[in-house]
Amino acid sequence: MTHDLEPHVHDAARAARSAALDLRAAPRAAKDAALHAMADALVAHTDEILDANARDVEDGRAAGLGDHIIDRLRLDADRVAAMAQGIRDVAALPDPVGEVVRGSTLANGLELRQVRVPIGVIGMIYEGRPNVTADAAAICLKAGNAVLLRGSRSASASNAAIAAVLRDAVASTGLPADAVQAIDPSDRSSSTALLRARGLVDLVIPRGGAGLIQAVVRDALVPVIETGTGNVHVYVDADADLDMALDIVVNAKTQRTSVCNAAESLLVHKAVADDFLPRVVAALREREVTIHGDDAFRATDAEVVAATEEDYSTEYLSLDIAARVVDSFEDAVAHIRTYSSGHTEAIVTRSLPTAQRFVASVDAAAVMINASTRFTDGGELGMGAEIGISTQKLHARGPMGLPEMTTTTFVVTGDGHVR
Amino acid sequence: MTHDLEPHVHDAARAARSAALDLRAAPRAAKDAALHAMADALVAHTDEILDANARDVEDGRAAGLGDHIIDRLRLDADRVAAMAQGIRDVAALPDPVGEVVRGSTLANGLELRQVRVPIGVIGMIYEGRPNVTADAAAICLKAGNAVLLRGSRSASASNAAIAAVLRDAVASTGLPADAVQAIDPSDRSSSTALLRARGLVDLVIPRGGAGLIQAVVRDALVPVIETGTGNVHVYVDADADLDMALDIVVNAKTQRTSVCNAAESLLVHKAVADDFLPRVVAALREREVTIHGDDAFRATDAEVVAATEEDYSTEYLSLDIAARVVDSFEDAVAHIRTYSSGHTEAIVTRSLPTAQRFVASVDAAAVMINASTRFTDGGELGMGAEIGISTQKLHARGPMGLPEMTTTTFVVTGDGHVR
Repeated sequence: MTHDLEPHVHDAARAARSAALDLRAAPRAAKDAALHAMADALVAHTDEILDANARDVEDGRAAGLGDHIIDRLRLDADRVAAMAQGIRDVAALPDPVGEVVRGSTLANGLELRQVRVPIGVIGMIYEGRPNVTADAAAICLKAGNAVLLRGSRSASASNAAIAAVLRDAVASTGLPADAVQAIDPSDRSSSTALLRARGLVDLVIPRGGAGLIQAVVRDALVPVIETGTGNVHVYVDADADLDMALDIVVNAKTQRTSVCNAAESLLVHKAVADDFLPRVVAALREREVTIHGDDAFRATDAEVVAATEEDYSTEYLSLDIAARVVDSFEDAVAHIRTYSSGHTEAIVTRSLPTAQRFVASVDAAAVMINASTRFTDGGELGMGAEIGISTQKLHARGPMGLPEMTTTTFVVTGDGHVR
Repeated sequence: MTHDLEPHVHDAARAARSAALDLRAAPRAAKDAALHAMADALVAHTDEILDANARDVEDGRAAGLGDHIIDRLRLDADRVAAMAQGIRDVAALPDPVGEVVRGSTLANGLELRQVRVPIGVIGMIYEGRPNVTADAAAICLKAGNAVLLRGSRSASASNAAIAAVLRDAVASTGLPADAVQAIDPSDRSSSTALLRARGLVDLVIPRGGAGLIQAVVRDALVPVIETGTGNVHVYVDADADLDMALDIVVNAKTQRTSVCNAAESLLVHKAVADDFLPRVVAALREREVTIHGDDAFRATDAEVVAATEEDYSTEYLSLDIAARVVDSFEDAVAHIRTYSSGHTEAIVTRSLPTAQRFVASVDAAAVMINASTRFTDGGELGMGAEIGISTQKLHARGPMGLPEMTTTTFVVTGDGHVR
């Protein structure tokens, strides 16, 4: 591993720290003005951005990237317009900075307020989609943070073009351009340097596959929020409404497969297996889902593949699902405890006590009762914008919006109070 | 480095995970009953605990430990009674588990609740005082977590005796004894194993000096909350009430010196230097404080020692203070930004705009306006109990009480909702 990009990252981080001091003091109106300028500039510079993107796509094809990676990389005028709209949506959200999350007057007369303040300098390490560049810049800026954007090498021209447009727009409103900086992704050393920049970077958020997240957690010396790996289960209980269960399973598995809140495993209580298995197997096969099932599922349909231990641990992110009949509620919980990645777990049941026991027994960022797992999403849950879905227990768990991009300060006001 | 204690730590962590599942489901009444049993048992077994403590003190003297370390190590009947009272105080606090921190009904009818749940298994690594064993056990249990207690080798007999008493008490009420486990501190490998037990331990909290915290952050593969290093400043503004300033400086420096919220540096605006320096130097010298000052302080009194760059960076934890006259508010802020450890910063001023600018400019866990820095304390701020003071920005910042020992789950209830 070379370290050639470490000086570049450190210079950028120092500039970001300085910008963060200005952002910290910026009122909401100034930040919203910058966000609207960013959105307008993206639209105005669509051609430049699409030119840069075309170079990335061409390089990607030459490097033999698969169609579905090329699809995630490719921008068009609609996608640029959607990025701009996303930034305007962030501008419309309340400013988390200054929110008083706890406050009281103490017995001795001290006035106590715990107030949200920006975190400081945030590093993003991400793959694929160039829209993350705009989304992350907007969310970080609204919460008063400077951001260092380390995208993938395959999107380097697109990300650099987007960041350049955003920087000029921020500067045009009087806020510091260095609030938004793209980090050179041409060598792994820039990612490593970001993760090791203690004292310069306050938080790194990786967005990507399990491999990226694991590497980041291993290498990091700065605080990191793990995001997004979801080995998501749907449990169809003995007391389930089977029509509802069918809708939820099909939606959770097939509505979009490449996302962390898509279902990967199906557990069915044996009491409803005879009724439910033929229906769910037919419905999933109709949507071209490959079912990796146990003996009961295989007995239902010859096209069901035998499930291995590995299938139950796998986040497919594809039209595959692991499936098992369980003898009891307890068996379902034991299975989930063994294989869950702590992202989202769902139960379909009409029984209130069973739903309560499920919530008490399963340890995940989100628990869905009679709803599709696809609702674990900042937008769907009314958080307005989302910088990622945390699968860790510290600081933020589940979809992370603007408040999660802040920390707090206790402000204590006295009149000469001493102990 | 040997790894001989790693199997011991992993066995304990697995037992703790199992206990944590039971604790997770335990209602407040069961947890409070266990806490009262713990408190009663400590008092009932005072003699055993003091016998074990006497062995630690004897070993410590033989090993040449200093008087002030021996003093922190030593227990007596009053200190054991105080530990028991601390546990009863935790029992009296509200249960953070189950608190709904956010909730709404979404436009599509989905019912959303974000609910506090236990973190799981918490590791504590600490030095010196055996009372941390009881405090940490009580706070972790009340928040539904199992705890692995890795104290210092010098207190090993005391900590083992206290933990054994607490375990029996917990078990006597029907909760699992393995909710509280002492980890063998005879080799560094047990500390390292705790820090590397990914998947077994959810969080490690180190409590101790800067050296311990740094080693922990460097070695940790599990999430860690940094605690307690405080290079704390008091800034006496041009608009300060100088009588008030004198009280606050003396209290912040001398009321207790070995704690992280004690003042370590004094900054005085030049406009009040002529009036204030003779008074503050006399008051501090009267209390045997060694002043490490700049030229202005040295001109005030011949006993003032010349301050070096290192003095401004040092957390003395003793009757020493670094002192400087600053030319302006901006100079004071620049000094604090350079040397602050982000724990507590104080200003003394009658000017509201200056106080507001100070809060906006200084990035710390706590900012004191016309109050002693010694108030950065969970007990003083009305949080009831404190497991440490976080100096990091993620998850918890400042004094950590019971809510900070939880995470959350989004519970989403639908009626067959799909996307």
